[in-house]
Amino acid sequence: MERAIDNRIEDLKKMILLMGGHVEKSLAQAIAALLSRDLSAFEQVHAIEKLINEDHIRVDNACMNILAKQGPVAKDLRLVLSVIKINNDLERMGDQAVNISHSGKDYLSRKPIQAQLSDIQRMSEVAGKMVKGSLDCFVREECEQAKKILSMDDELDALKNKVFKDAIAHMKAHSDDVEACMDLILIARNLERLGDHATNIAEDVIFAFTGKDVRHGGKFG
Amino acid sequence: MERAIDNRIEDLKKMILLMGGHVEKSLAQAIAALLSRDLSAFEQVHAIEKLINEDHIRVDNACMNILAKQGPVAKDLRLVLSVIKINNDLERMGDQAVNISHSGKDYLSRKPIQAQLSDIQRMSEVAGKMVKGSLDCFVREECEQAKKILSMDDELDALKNKVFKDAIAHMKAHSDDVEACMDLILIARNLERLGDHATNIAEDVIFAFTGKDVRHGGKFG
Repeated sequence: MERAIDNRIEDLKKMILLMGGHVEKSLAQAIAALLSRDLSAFEQVHAIEKLINEDHIRVDNACMNILAKQGPVAKDLRLVLSVIKINNDLERMGDQAVNISHSGKDYLSRKPIQAQLSDIQRMSEVAGKMVKGSLDCFVREECEQAKKILSMDDELDALKNKVFKDAIAHMKAHSDDVEACMDLILIARNLERLGDHATNIAEDVIFAFTGKDVRHGGKFG
Repeated sequence: MERAIDNRIEDLKKMILLMGGHVEKSLAQAIAALLSRDLSAFEQVHAIEKLINEDHIRVDNACMNILAKQGPVAKDLRLVLSVIKINNDLERMGDQAVNISHSGKDYLSRKPIQAQLSDIQRMSEVAGKMVKGSLDCFVREECEQAKKILSMDDELDALKNKVFKDAIAHMKAHSDDVEACMDLILIARNLERLGDHATNIAEDVIFAFTGKDVRHGGKFG
């Protein structure tokens, strides 16, 4: 038998997927602007942020309506609560893309340095996959996939450490490049945080569909 | 007439206050360890993080119980949803205190530099006031006070910019001190993020008690 709440939950999933698409696009755009040294391309990131902020309020209102009118319990309730958290994580991912855009603009305004942006590019690819993967898990209710997100986060952290190490070595040898290296460090940090938010989403997915709390060292599987 | 839900909401407020106390203590401890150059004192930060993580799960479960059993609506529902978000922000504040503790340990392991830690200290004072202030607003249901938190965040951002500027100037002049300056930059960034979380809480308080959404440029007052 079809329940009214099933339709509302399908709507929620669609809204989250749409929002996640905006976040992916925003991240990809910020990194593309950096790599192609195209200052004007950063503007697109700010335009997408507006959409993400609208998504954020829309999802929150939809959750509140379901809670007030449908009185969900058990798995349905866990799912709605997870959406409230996923919504917040996605919104903050959008903020990180904007932060990348700010640091990216700063970076392009400075004397070009002989820096490897390949690690930053690789980080953005991993982070992008984590965003997409975490939302796929959510929509398909697949918890096995969610565990993979957690291990991708380790790869992202290792890449961030490499960017930090290389940038610090470069700064020590070239004091003129301190600002530019700082920009790269901050971008790496933003990408790391994007991955953290995707990890939060994966944990929320596991909780929503299994009732198992894997946060704070809880075991899953 | 007393309603059953009023007692549950009072319980929630008490839990949030307790958790907020842990966050304040954790931040104060991390900064005290840094300023007194006492490596062992950082351990306390990790001990408090465990408490914060326990608080986090306890509050989430309490909210879920209220939603499932009391079916709150209108202001009560907004309040419970705000608690879910405030809970997440507090937990992440605890993470920031742990991050400060990691960078603080790194900083103390290096050759001492002639750095001004007074701005870091000032930042921690402002951030601490923001944490306390945002939770006071929540418990007392005072929205006017919440607006003050938003302006304290501007002060925190200005201090962070000063720490960044001074650290960059120092790195350019003293390449041996690059790592130590990076530690200070990361600590300033963590303190800035702590303030951002307190700002989120203040916005949630305004939403819970007025129904007005002041996020994303919405106006309050």
